[in-house]
Amino acid sequence: MGKVQARMESALSRLLPPAHIAPARLHEAMRYAALGGGKRVRPLLSFAAGEVSGAAPERLEVAAAAVELIHAYSLVHDDLPCMDDDVLRRGKPSVHVEYDEATALLVGDALQTLAFQLLAEHRLADDARVQLEMLKLLALAAGSRGMAGGQQIDLESTGKPLALPELEFMHIHKTGALIRAAVLVGAACGKPLGDAEHTGLDRYAKAVGLAFQVVDDLLDYEGSTATLGKTAGKDSRQGKPTYVSAIGATGAHELALELRGEAHAALEALGTRAARLASLADFVVLRKF
Amino acid sequence: MGKVQARMESALSRLLPPAHIAPARLHEAMRYAALGGGKRVRPLLSFAAGEVSGAAPERLEVAAAAVELIHAYSLVHDDLPCMDDDVLRRGKPSVHVEYDEATALLVGDALQTLAFQLLAEHRLADDARVQLEMLKLLALAAGSRGMAGGQQIDLESTGKPLALPELEFMHIHKTGALIRAAVLVGAACGKPLGDAEHTGLDRYAKAVGLAFQVVDDLLDYEGSTATLGKTAGKDSRQGKPTYVSAIGATGAHELALELRGEAHAALEALGTRAARLASLADFVVLRKF
Repeated sequence: MGKVQARMESALSRLLPPAHIAPARLHEAMRYAALGGGKRVRPLLSFAAGEVSGAAPERLEVAAAAVELIHAYSLVHDDLPCMDDDVLRRGKPSVHVEYDEATALLVGDALQTLAFQLLAEHRLADDARVQLEMLKLLALAAGSRGMAGGQQIDLESTGKPLALPELEFMHIHKTGALIRAAVLVGAACGKPLGDAEHTGLDRYAKAVGLAFQVVDDLLDYEGSTATLGKTAGKDSRQGKPTYVSAIGATGAHELALELRGEAHAALEALGTRAARLASLADFVVLRKF
Repeated sequence: MGKVQARMESALSRLLPPAHIAPARLHEAMRYAALGGGKRVRPLLSFAAGEVSGAAPERLEVAAAAVELIHAYSLVHDDLPCMDDDVLRRGKPSVHVEYDEATALLVGDALQTLAFQLLAEHRLADDARVQLEMLKLLALAAGSRGMAGGQQIDLESTGKPLALPELEFMHIHKTGALIRAAVLVGAACGKPLGDAEHTGLDRYAKAVGLAFQVVDDLLDYEGSTATLGKTAGKDSRQGKPTYVSAIGATGAHELALELRGEAHAALEALGTRAARLASLADFVVLRKF
């Protein structure tokens, strides 16, 4: 799976403003935040979904870059002292540590703007109305009823034990919405899908999005800072509700496997073109155990 | 000019998520940040530019709301302790004072997302490609080579005297870009303009954008906190370069009048449909003297 990641690194490098253009410090810090790291799970999902609809890689890399920039902006803002206050990200100092808080704030702001700029300025669909739909989809996934809303619920839940339905509600927003957008935006770069295919893809995306968070919670619980590239065990130290705290490590493990089964079942409507999506569901769930 | 402002208040109230929808605290704080205040200069400009191209008010209010939400987000983030650290905005406690820093961060993030969502989900032009152009225009104006970039230059300039060309470069980004976008996005809601009309409108927008900042610097220098609704005199206390520090109050006053003349001259290509734009140039420059 290194091919998509290498392609994305090069696409992001090309699509981000060069570091020598004014304001240089901001552009350098934006590149620091978005390049050279991460599993690129969302771009992998966009490319795999693009295989289902026969999308051109030139379109997919721009659509995937937009989703990844939203993800990168959220990490920069999450790491700020007023949020999770984390000094380590992807094995490097967080942006506000390497630069300063004000620059990190602007880096996140400008990465978000760039994501929408990319979806507006590149031709990603034959019909411009489809492209507007993609923009709307990403905005809904990122905004107050998506990722940013999930962060707010996270803030308010710290120190409180959450039951499974509340935890799920938080993660559908915080992580799931953007993962779902990665899948749907990737597919939208190609030929229009039938209703059954679209429903299958959406069901798949929701299952994988939730599985991703369940496994993340398990990794945070079991992992070491060295293998994670970010501070391990911080969720429990910060009193954050996780799947492990809600249903135990064994329960979380079982839930992840169940969601993997749900993801595979959802792909049945899509046939062999969905083979890569199927193996990504395995990758997301089995990356640890 | 109260009519456009009342219309905008009602449009923003309708377009923002209701305060009772989860996450309620975030939505309440987004509404606190964006409603009930401000001169609404950018919406006034959008509506006036829309008169030139015969744009429908239903489209204009959405386009103007998108620009105003970008402006509102920038104020929330600018007021944060790591930036300008200001406790007062539009005569009320800043968002991070009324709520908390983490919520204020998410409010700014989500207001920005909502701006792009609005431009993507409402029909604002007969041709969807024109609407993608509007999105691109707003993104360029808001991002690292526009408003956010101007903020970065501002950060780096604090405590350093700037010569007039450098000061202008900063303000063309920090304030000018979004004011220009307000004008051009408003015009784009109507019939396509000819090249000469478009050039005239762009020249007008640039002159008014710069004049706005020159007058803002004068008001900060001369004004009181009560009339401004934000902390007065803080630019000089924070060691920020301003037009008053660069060329003196008299020089700044003369420059503002000169830019007003430039704005009027630029409108000549547009005829009588530009009457409201002309009086807005007067309003921007003469609101103090």
